[in-house]
Amino acid sequence: MGSLTEIGVSAGINILSALGFLVAFAVLRIQPINDRVYFPKWYLKGTRSSPRHLGTVISKFVNADMSTYIRFLSWMPAALRMPEPELIEHAGLDSAVYVRIYLLGLKIFVPIALLAFAVLVPVNWTSGTLENEKGLSYDQIDKLSISNIGKGSKRFWAHIVMCYVFTFWMFFVLFHEYKVVTTMRLRFLANQNRRPDQYTVLVRNVPPDPDESVSEHVEHFFAVNHRDHYLSHQIVYNANHLSGLVEKKKGLQNWLIYYENRHAKNPEKKPTMKTGLWGLWGQKVDAIEYYKKEIEELCKQEDEERQKVITDPNSIMPAAFVSFKTRWGAAVCAQTQQTSNPTVWLTEWAPEPRDVYWANLAIPYVELSVRRLIIAVSFFFLTFFFMVPIAIVQSLANLDDIEKVLPFLKPIIERNSLKPVIQGFLPGIVLKIFLILLPTILMAMSKIEGHTSLSGLDRKTAMKYYVFLFVNVFLGSVITGTAFQQLDNFIHQSANKIPEVVGESIPMKATFFMTYIMVDGWAGVAAEVLRLKPLVIFHIKNAFLVRTEHDREQAMDPGSLDFYNSEPRLQLYFLLGLVYAVVTPMLLPFIIVFFSLAYLVFRHQIINVYNQQYESGAQFWPDVHMRLIIALMVSQILLLGLLSTQEAEKSTIALLPLPVLSLWFHYVCKGRFEPAFVKFPLQDAMVKDTLERAHDPTLNLRDYLKGAYVHPVFQKNDIYELVTIDEEEKNPLVVTKRQSRMTTPGGSKFNSSSGTNEGEFSRVPPP
Amino acid sequence: MGSLTEIGVSAGINILSALGFLVAFAVLRIQPINDRVYFPKWYLKGTRSSPRHLGTVISKFVNADMSTYIRFLSWMPAALRMPEPELIEHAGLDSAVYVRIYLLGLKIFVPIALLAFAVLVPVNWTSGTLENEKGLSYDQIDKLSISNIGKGSKRFWAHIVMCYVFTFWMFFVLFHEYKVVTTMRLRFLANQNRRPDQYTVLVRNVPPDPDESVSEHVEHFFAVNHRDHYLSHQIVYNANHLSGLVEKKKGLQNWLIYYENRHAKNPEKKPTMKTGLWGLWGQKVDAIEYYKKEIEELCKQEDEERQKVITDPNSIMPAAFVSFKTRWGAAVCAQTQQTSNPTVWLTEWAPEPRDVYWANLAIPYVELSVRRLIIAVSFFFLTFFFMVPIAIVQSLANLDDIEKVLPFLKPIIERNSLKPVIQGFLPGIVLKIFLILLPTILMAMSKIEGHTSLSGLDRKTAMKYYVFLFVNVFLGSVITGTAFQQLDNFIHQSANKIPEVVGESIPMKATFFMTYIMVDGWAGVAAEVLRLKPLVIFHIKNAFLVRTEHDREQAMDPGSLDFYNSEPRLQLYFLLGLVYAVVTPMLLPFIIVFFSLAYLVFRHQIINVYNQQYESGAQFWPDVHMRLIIALMVSQILLLGLLSTQEAEKSTIALLPLPVLSLWFHYVCKGRFEPAFVKFPLQDAMVKDTLERAHDPTLNLRDYLKGAYVHPVFQKNDIYELVTIDEEEKNPLVVTKRQSRMTTPGGSKFNSSSGTNEGEFSRVPPP
Repeated sequence: MGSLTEIGVSAGINILSALGFLVAFAVLRIQPINDRVYFPKWYLKGTRSSPRHLGTVISKFVNADMSTYIRFLSWMPAALRMPEPELIEHAGLDSAVYVRIYLLGLKIFVPIALLAFAVLVPVNWTSGTLENEKGLSYDQIDKLSISNIGKGSKRFWAHIVMCYVFTFWMFFVLFHEYKVVTTMRLRFLANQNRRPDQYTVLVRNVPPDPDESVSEHVEHFFAVNHRDHYLSHQIVYNANHLSGLVEKKKGLQNWLIYYENRHAKNPEKKPTMKTGLWGLWGQKVDAIEYYKKEIEELCKQEDEERQKVITDPNSIMPAAFVSFKTRWGAAVCAQTQQTSNPTVWLTEWAPEPRDVYWANLAIPYVELSVRRLIIAVSFFFLTFFFMVPIAIVQSLANLDDIEKVLPFLKPIIERNSLKPVIQGFLPGIVLKIFLILLPTILMAMSKIEGHTSLSGLDRKTAMKYYVFLFVNVFLGSVITGTAFQQLDNFIHQSANKIPEVVGESIPMKATFFMTYIMVDGWAGVAAEVLRLKPLVIFHIKNAFLVRTEHDREQAMDPGSLDFYNSEPRLQLYFLLGLVYAVVTPMLLPFIIVFFSLAYLVFRHQIINVYNQQYESGAQFWPDVHMRLIIALMVSQILLLGLLSTQEAEKSTIALLPLPVLSLWFHYVCKGRFEPAFVKFPLQDAMVKDTLERAHDPTLNLRDYLKGAYVHPVFQKNDIYELVTIDEEEKNPLVVTKRQSRMTTPGGSKFNSSSGTNEGEFSRVPPP
Repeated sequence: MGSLTEIGVSAGINILSALGFLVAFAVLRIQPINDRVYFPKWYLKGTRSSPRHLGTVISKFVNADMSTYIRFLSWMPAALRMPEPELIEHAGLDSAVYVRIYLLGLKIFVPIALLAFAVLVPVNWTSGTLENEKGLSYDQIDKLSISNIGKGSKRFWAHIVMCYVFTFWMFFVLFHEYKVVTTMRLRFLANQNRRPDQYTVLVRNVPPDPDESVSEHVEHFFAVNHRDHYLSHQIVYNANHLSGLVEKKKGLQNWLIYYENRHAKNPEKKPTMKTGLWGLWGQKVDAIEYYKKEIEELCKQEDEERQKVITDPNSIMPAAFVSFKTRWGAAVCAQTQQTSNPTVWLTEWAPEPRDVYWANLAIPYVELSVRRLIIAVSFFFLTFFFMVPIAIVQSLANLDDIEKVLPFLKPIIERNSLKPVIQGFLPGIVLKIFLILLPTILMAMSKIEGHTSLSGLDRKTAMKYYVFLFVNVFLGSVITGTAFQQLDNFIHQSANKIPEVVGESIPMKATFFMTYIMVDGWAGVAAEVLRLKPLVIFHIKNAFLVRTEHDREQAMDPGSLDFYNSEPRLQLYFLLGLVYAVVTPMLLPFIIVFFSLAYLVFRHQIINVYNQQYESGAQFWPDVHMRLIIALMVSQILLLGLLSTQEAEKSTIALLPLPVLSLWFHYVCKGRFEPAFVKFPLQDAMVKDTLERAHDPTLNLRDYLKGAYVHPVFQKNDIYELVTIDEEEKNPLVVTKRQSRMTTPGGSKFNSSSGTNEGEFSRVPPP
């Protein structure tokens, strides 16, 4: 364990850099020019509009009101001020429950830290083993940790008792939290207004029929087997190619605007470009002309493709969205098996329209299982052998080779002072790039696995990322060496040796993890609030592409809570906290600072910035809960391993029931709460149906559902509007001054052309 | 590996004893006096009646027709003659599918044996490693096994390829078999005539309601939430105490009959008895008087208890059988979640009335999970530490102590020649008694776990028994030592060492397992057909208790296929066959003989003897399939371990994909077929409903279902009759000469008083 001074220095640097980010944020956010970067959520909500038309020219860009600079941390209490029900209303249940995870961290670790400092720190401190052993270099921090207790000491019983206390505290908090989240979800679903997905079931693997089209087959099947409940259905077109065209056209349009803007600024010179790769080679042409022609061409192609998709029976996928007359009918259909062959007519709740991952709707059952096998095997290799390709790339990425490929970099590289620096950083950069790309790679793997909703993709990717982080960051840091070396070691070690080896090195790594928490946790979270990347991109777009208010709306990237990216990293802190709670309680304050800061920052972000792509109603909670239980069990097993190396046999046996109890607790919670996240109870469906029949007896449901599940590229642009406005009008919790509204963000990956064209933007044609 | 002669001797002894059993069976079964022991199924079916009224007095008891002795194996072709559809009709799908497991054994192992003898035996034989190593004692059998191949030899590739071939053959056969069984099940369910369980759902954990009784609460809940489908319901009484009384009365009645018979034979002497423990101590009284008084007393108690149960609201359990107007409605209710709290209003398909395990219907959710935890922990200790109590009992069970407790045994024990023999056998006998009791102990554990149907209990017990046999018989024989020592070893060994250690000792244990198969398999199956225990018990009952035809009917114990006892033992042969297929192919013929003999014997038994307590429609198949996959994976991993000790590293890697593929295959099969064993598809329900509406538009379902799910102690005795006759009249596949019919055997554990009283037995009042 490192020295107290080292930790102090590291803490100082990281606190300073975190403060730096916070100050930068405080300054940048009050500049009107950055308003759309730091408050996009309110623009999307329609309660805020561009500050451009107020005040002088300078005040459009720079905030000159000095008093606002003094209150530069004022956003923190503001972030806490919005009550939870309003937060759910404002940002959705997913986001509201997500920030509860940080709060949960505080709920778990504040009492644990208090207890650990009251009981374990004195026990460790007064043991004096390190003092008595001459010749051993140790530090004050070591005296606070379990290392200070001699082998076979009776004092270990304090740690065992504390481990029990912490476990039962975890049980209590986790059970309570699961209960609260379940209640929130059920209340949220019960309070939701009429939505298409409440009546709709996604049917996959419609078997082929020689005599009927997919549409007829679906209609006949459900009209017979759900006679009293079937209402209508929407077939699914294979519009993946068409989406590609739309996406491509959008890119070209951006370039066209860019060149037109350039031309407008400098009317004398016609902008030219080269048609080859990346504009570097090829014929020189007039850029505006070229893009206009290209776009025209694409429009034609797009129309043809659109016609083809609609008319060609081969582009109809064997899947459909089937709607029912009542929520009860839909709930029944989603939860039951339709035919004796369980690989056809698969039914499940339809995701919300914006949550559907269209590309995966038509994968046959056998292909799906083959895909899962392949991904499982690849994921195993990725986790344990990812260092192999990285090492190859690192060996290739030496400066001489780079100079050969990109000769124009030569003069820069060849400067004597720079070369060794770059040479030293390069391997690290390769690894860093891989780690940055990793969540995207894992997401791609999940997409190949064939999940049909974005929320499902997020959850599966999060699971993979967590496993990767656990193996490569946690275990990889504790026992130094690549994952493959560890795997090799573990295979060749006995089952009871593994926890011993890992457990034994745990206390020695406390300093490393403290630094890790400060760098990745404190400074990382502070950087998150600054939004450096969206800030830069917004200003680039603003400079080159924006002509109208609508363009500015498009340029704004609110981003979203990337569950698959942020949750697994957050889980790592729970793991560290639980593992070190008994071993080195000194680590706990670092964790607590992280959770407090992150809670503030993310609550601020979901209020002011993020715009979720979908709303799954906190469906991720069972996964979060499971990973917390995993962390708890890992901490128990590692303590067991650690103690068994300390010649305390009895104590090892005393700890054995804990993992069993934890596993049992997991199953109890799973049975008690999980169905609420998977199924929709018939009673609730019946209550909502009855209420609706009383409130709105003349409702024409068929009209209401028409077009709700049309592929985004075919979508009328006002569908979402109708639905969401309807929802909001009946939920006047927050009085809004609605001007514009965009539920699917402009930069959505699915090329949704549903950008709003209501109110002031209605004159802008959809892209 | 032992010598060829040893195996020969062992085989000779076991073949002789198996033949002895078969001859004894052949002689005994054609004696008219044993007719009810060897053909009870036909008596129950009503197509056979006592042969007593035919011929002379002697011919009533002894078969004098010599020609029948010559054809003493004639039952074998007879057993094969009944075609499968008729077998299903005659003995039920459970039994028909169960014997298919033996056939599956033949389908798997005959081609594997042929291939192994064609390829592996020559490869092993010609290797000559053992011959070259001087000073090594070996035998001809060893030359046929993998031991004959030298370390690092290229010949191991033959074994690897064969392992792949065998695995894919297993995949093919298992997939095909799963498909066939699924089809059989679906056809069986589709062809079934109207049965109460098709319309009925078991609802458990009805939440308490302060204002309503359980019955009202159930009615209101389902009338609201399944408005168009709810028909009626049957509440469940806690009649466990009442059942006890009924059971006790039956025992007393048996004694009364016994003494009355004695008195009738010897009218001068009034039979007397002592009232104390086991009739050994206490006051001497007139036995007939005493029992008459006792029975009268009990009848009174029984009536009171019956009244109490019906009137006391506390004896109503929070569970109910809810019936629906259509099968569709029941299918929907069974497969959906009812309320937002998933621990109340739990619905599942009602088991058949005779399959219900009444005592477990009212366990609250939390108690259930605590019970499961306790049983899981106890089962772990039972599996790994069962030798501890056995050893204690063994140490107590020495002759001196026995002499002290039971002094009257002294003269027998003290004979010099006997004492050492008994002393030697005693520990073995204690262990043997434990092993005989083991399935019953495991069944008791499953009952504590709280499963609600007999079929479910059978399946869960089978799983436990399989784990026990795998750990203690298979692993325990391969690596000698108690399970606890193994566990200790395994914990202290590295993960890749375990398959190596087990794999390495596999070839050496081939002789042991050959002997095991002959003793437990060949002789055991031959003993099964003899039915020694039921034979003795029947004759005892016949001598002392039987007065009327009905009594004789009661004395007859057809027994049943005890799935929880026989299937796990049978699985052991699959495991042995798969493990040794590559290592020592010489073992395969022994397995094949076992499967052939067992197939014949069990087919004969289910045709002529066994009477199943319930019909679950082969619901056990997913379990059987899973255990076969486990056996396959174990065999692959052990081969991997074995080869890795033979310095064949490449080959180890070549085998690695096999367990992964097997696991994947398991999941594919599970997804493809398992739902057919758990859920009832809506389409099939709709088809049956529609047909029924067309055939029988005036059906009064409420009357039909009334009383179907009444606890057996309250049951009118003709309920089952009505149902089953109805079923048979419409299924005239086998023309039967029906005289009597008893679906629930008289000796049922649940004191069902539903013994038939139709036809010739109608004058006998129910017990």
